[in-house]
Amino acid sequence: ETLSGGVAEADPFTGKLLELYEQIYCTEGAGEFAKSADRFGVLRSDYMLHNNNELKQVELNTIASSFAGLASQVAQMHGHLVERYIGEEKDIREWLEVNKRAVMGGDASDDSSKDGVPVSPALTCIPAGMSVVHDRYVSRYCSSSDGSLSPVILFVVQEGETNTVDQRMLEIALWEKHKIPVVRMSLTAGYTKLATDAKTGALSILLDDGSSREVSLVYFRAGYAPTDYPGENGEEWKTREKIELSRATKCPSMGYHLAGAKKVQQALARPGKLERFFSEDEQSLVPGLRSTFAGLYSLGADACEGDKAAVKDAISGQEGNYVLKPQREGGGYNYYGEGLCAKLKENVSGDMELSKELAEFILMERLFPPQQRACLLRAGKVEGFGDSISELGCFGTVVSSESGEIVHNEYAGFLLRTKFSNVDEGGVASGFATLSSPYLCR
Amino acid sequence: ETLSGGVAEADPFTGKLLELYEQIYCTEGAGEFAKSADRFGVLRSDYMLHNNNELKQVELNTIASSFAGLASQVAQMHGHLVERYIGEEKDIREWLEVNKRAVMGGDASDDSSKDGVPVSPALTCIPAGMSVVHDRYVSRYCSSSDGSLSPVILFVVQEGETNTVDQRMLEIALWEKHKIPVVRMSLTAGYTKLATDAKTGALSILLDDGSSREVSLVYFRAGYAPTDYPGENGEEWKTREKIELSRATKCPSMGYHLAGAKKVQQALARPGKLERFFSEDEQSLVPGLRSTFAGLYSLGADACEGDKAAVKDAISGQEGNYVLKPQREGGGYNYYGEGLCAKLKENVSGDMELSKELAEFILMERLFPPQQRACLLRAGKVEGFGDSISELGCFGTVVSSESGEIVHNEYAGFLLRTKFSNVDEGGVASGFATLSSPYLCR
Repeated sequence: ETLSGGVAEADPFTGKLLELYEQIYCTEGAGEFAKSADRFGVLRSDYMLHNNNELKQVELNTIASSFAGLASQVAQMHGHLVERYIGEEKDIREWLEVNKRAVMGGDASDDSSKDGVPVSPALTCIPAGMSVVHDRYVSRYCSSSDGSLSPVILFVVQEGETNTVDQRMLEIALWEKHKIPVVRMSLTAGYTKLATDAKTGALSILLDDGSSREVSLVYFRAGYAPTDYPGENGEEWKTREKIELSRATKCPSMGYHLAGAKKVQQALARPGKLERFFSEDEQSLVPGLRSTFAGLYSLGADACEGDKAAVKDAISGQEGNYVLKPQREGGGYNYYGEGLCAKLKENVSGDMELSKELAEFILMERLFPPQQRACLLRAGKVEGFGDSISELGCFGTVVSSESGEIVHNEYAGFLLRTKFSNVDEGGVASGFATLSSPYLCR
Repeated sequence: ETLSGGVAEADPFTGKLLELYEQIYCTEGAGEFAKSADRFGVLRSDYMLHNNNELKQVELNTIASSFAGLASQVAQMHGHLVERYIGEEKDIREWLEVNKRAVMGGDASDDSSKDGVPVSPALTCIPAGMSVVHDRYVSRYCSSSDGSLSPVILFVVQEGETNTVDQRMLEIALWEKHKIPVVRMSLTAGYTKLATDAKTGALSILLDDGSSREVSLVYFRAGYAPTDYPGENGEEWKTREKIELSRATKCPSMGYHLAGAKKVQQALARPGKLERFFSEDEQSLVPGLRSTFAGLYSLGADACEGDKAAVKDAISGQEGNYVLKPQREGGGYNYYGEGLCAKLKENVSGDMELSKELAEFILMERLFPPQQRACLLRAGKVEGFGDSISELGCFGTVVSSESGEIVHNEYAGFLLRTKFSNVDEGGVASGFATLSSPYLCR
């Protein structure tokens, strides 16, 4: 409901997803296999420091969150370098001390003996979550006596994907630790090579040697952007639908995918909304959780007085304190400063009437992370030294049964992305930001 | 004694080493600290298959044996690929079966369920051996109460070394598993940055920040070739001598270094020689060990009738069954076929009189390993398909006390190098051979 109406109209991609979701999950008698499947999320909640040492959520990613594997390796390297050289290199100690003060100010303890780079368990925890889903599928659907090969996990990837190493790390861990085979395929190739059995709902994949294997889990590392659906006749959308209709677990299911929309993030921040996801015993956790939310304002039909006040503030000289964000995943489409001010002014009329075009956006309080010294590398060479800002991503895995019972819910590692403060654009794959590691202090 | 005379005269590099060795270790009252140090070998014994399934020793490397780290990773990769795909890819099964038959012929079992790529423990075992040496040094010489930083292990490397990743793997494992810091330096830089305390024999290294650290173990990944000693005034030789005279353990000590000479290998193969290294209880092991030796013939003053008969054979049309090998480490200087025949003929006169120039060589039975199918890669791309031959290297670590007591003696992993059979030259770093992995069958 949050997404129907304004967002779906203004953003055709989200609209298409929502339409399929409603057809499959909200229509009596339809989507029997999809409804019966487990739900599985590999989620990444992104945070920035704000007002020095406060963590504020930037967004929640529910599809194709990347860099879990590479970031684990980077943290291992940084942990090694700090631990190995902090004793004998005065420069490193000073460098870390300056950054500690920049974040913690007077709260920083002089005792740094417990400070350090944490270990990210992502390459253990994410495959472990996948194996929970796979094992549940096997015990539910696969008879061990019929001699057929075990099902595979399907990684849906982009054609010409360049971030393959990060994905291969998960694939290799799945085999080495859980003996679960992985097959990679694009949505385009899946159009001819994937089939969902009409009787059982089993999803099967045609391999290169002509044999076919059942799929227990479909892990999407593609499918989050319109460019992942290039087919003139909607081939990729048909593949997506075919997958969704199967009994295989989808990571994410369309519902989980839609839950990552900025609009949902904004709606969850409304007073009273978070409470319904916690039991009576857990209500005391809500204020702490809500304190990690930045100011989030609707620009849709449901915009309240508070939302409009924020818009007014933003077009009255305070544009620097806001970000205008579209629903679309993948970054790089945000409005800041003058651009934000102009975009809002174009779409506000009369007594703070907001045009329909704004419905696909949310307005968010801009975060001001403390600047820290950094030396950034590109392709093994020093790119430069300067002030930087960072964004922390925290992975988690969650599995729920068809009845909605949570059967697995675990923290699953982190990544940190760092860029020079004078660079507006973000993104590691696009070359603006680098993978880095947190250094925890007290 | 084996090396003095012929070899030392004909090969100035070995001569120089031997001269220093005798000065330091064989002179009463000299080399007090060197003599008192533990001896440590990271050895690699190289083998080829011969007459199908017989393992014959090619040589024993006692200095700078490389690729322990990279080969472990390659074996892990090959193990993964075979285990993951052998079930579903018929081509892989056929490929391995053809090679199994090429080596084992009729001895090959039809049951391949126990076949596979072994795991190389080199990155655990070699650092573990180093830590034994380091810990013995610390408990012998370092008081824990004086507050000074722990000693470091010095890796002596070539200027402009390109095989650094392999070395860094050992360095990182030493820190991660044993918290032992490593410092890298060339013999050239060591001339000004290393000092041996005249009173205590402690070897110390000057770090970049001006501080100095004691060295427990010097691990040579350079120093085995004349090109590692370029200084016009013998700077590198002086560094080597300074290191040798210290109380730090050397890997290898000059004695261990010299023990890797081909001449020693040949002398050990003489009847009755191997026996003296085994106790009475162990004498039954000798024939099995000797059966791994190929035919080895002296061309020095000690050449016996059997040696001369081999030379005669080689210059009478059987040159294809021999290799002529110089003492020098590093490969690429061997004579085969017509070149071997010509070299021998030039230096044989009258009734099989051998000229002094031949003393630096040994004549060895040529090995004929079975040819196996291979697909070789270079820089991630397929270089070609074809028949190949392989050489197996087995690492071992050995620590002995100043009195000669063996306190540590362990197998420490393997590497396999593979090249196309039609390529005469060898060497991974030189680009002719590739790192590969054994596939054990029964």
